[in-house]
Amino acid sequence: METTTNTNPQQLSAIECTARLNAVGDALYAIGGKWKLRIIVALMNGRKRFNEVQRQVEGISAKVLSAELKDLELNGFIIRSVIPGTPVAVEYELTEYSMTLYDVLVALGNWGMMHREKVKAGFKKDVVAE
Amino acid sequence: METTTNTNPQQLSAIECTARLNAVGDALYAIGGKWKLRIIVALMNGRKRFNEVQRQVEGISAKVLSAELKDLELNGFIIRSVIPGTPVAVEYELTEYSMTLYDVLVALGNWGMMHREKVKAGFKKDVVAE
Repeated sequence: METTTNTNPQQLSAIECTARLNAVGDALYAIGGKWKLRIIVALMNGRKRFNEVQRQVEGISAKVLSAELKDLELNGFIIRSVIPGTPVAVEYELTEYSMTLYDVLVALGNWGMMHREKVKAGFKKDVVAE
Repeated sequence: METTTNTNPQQLSAIECTARLNAVGDALYAIGGKWKLRIIVALMNGRKRFNEVQRQVEGISAKVLSAELKDLELNGFIIRSVIPGTPVAVEYELTEYSMTLYDVLVALGNWGMMHREKVKAGFKKDVVAE
């Protein structure tokens, strides 16, 4: 029986591989999950109020958004500012540290666009094949 | 009252921002969650048996790993091969398509290493401050 073998363009040693695995693990621990990166992207073009963030991050509930914002604040990714007035306004904005995620977000965004095209193309093929 | 404002190095228009948000959302939908990317990294240096993958992806249970591998196979990220013999061996390897995630993994890995250093440095500072 023949099996296809994919040769990795850049073969990693076991030690390099483990280090990379751990680093990816660290990253996912801090910013993984369904919402955190989406919230960060939503704040990329400037500070926003809670409702504006919720509108932009489709499908998130107020309760979950509130918990995620708190978590992101604790971990130094966002700043929450209370702006006095009637009524008091609360705004969220990214810290400089969040900007270190820029390369990750660009890579993820590019991949997401490519993946969407692939899924669309696959879907069309399936429809034609029927 | 003054509030700090972080100017984004690359200001995005609302349309660009929404497109990027959606693309990141698509990516996270396909490869988000706690384990998928870690499993992909574990397979980056070649095909592995189930137990080898489990050993490398620290903390994953056999039940969860089995479900994640099935999901990754359905979505075209890995190939499962049954190798006849006594006993039969099952091996997993990445598809060419998984290799499109290379930039994402490098960006995430780099960020994870940087973040670990930052967390370590912050921890040291806290200890010194006590």
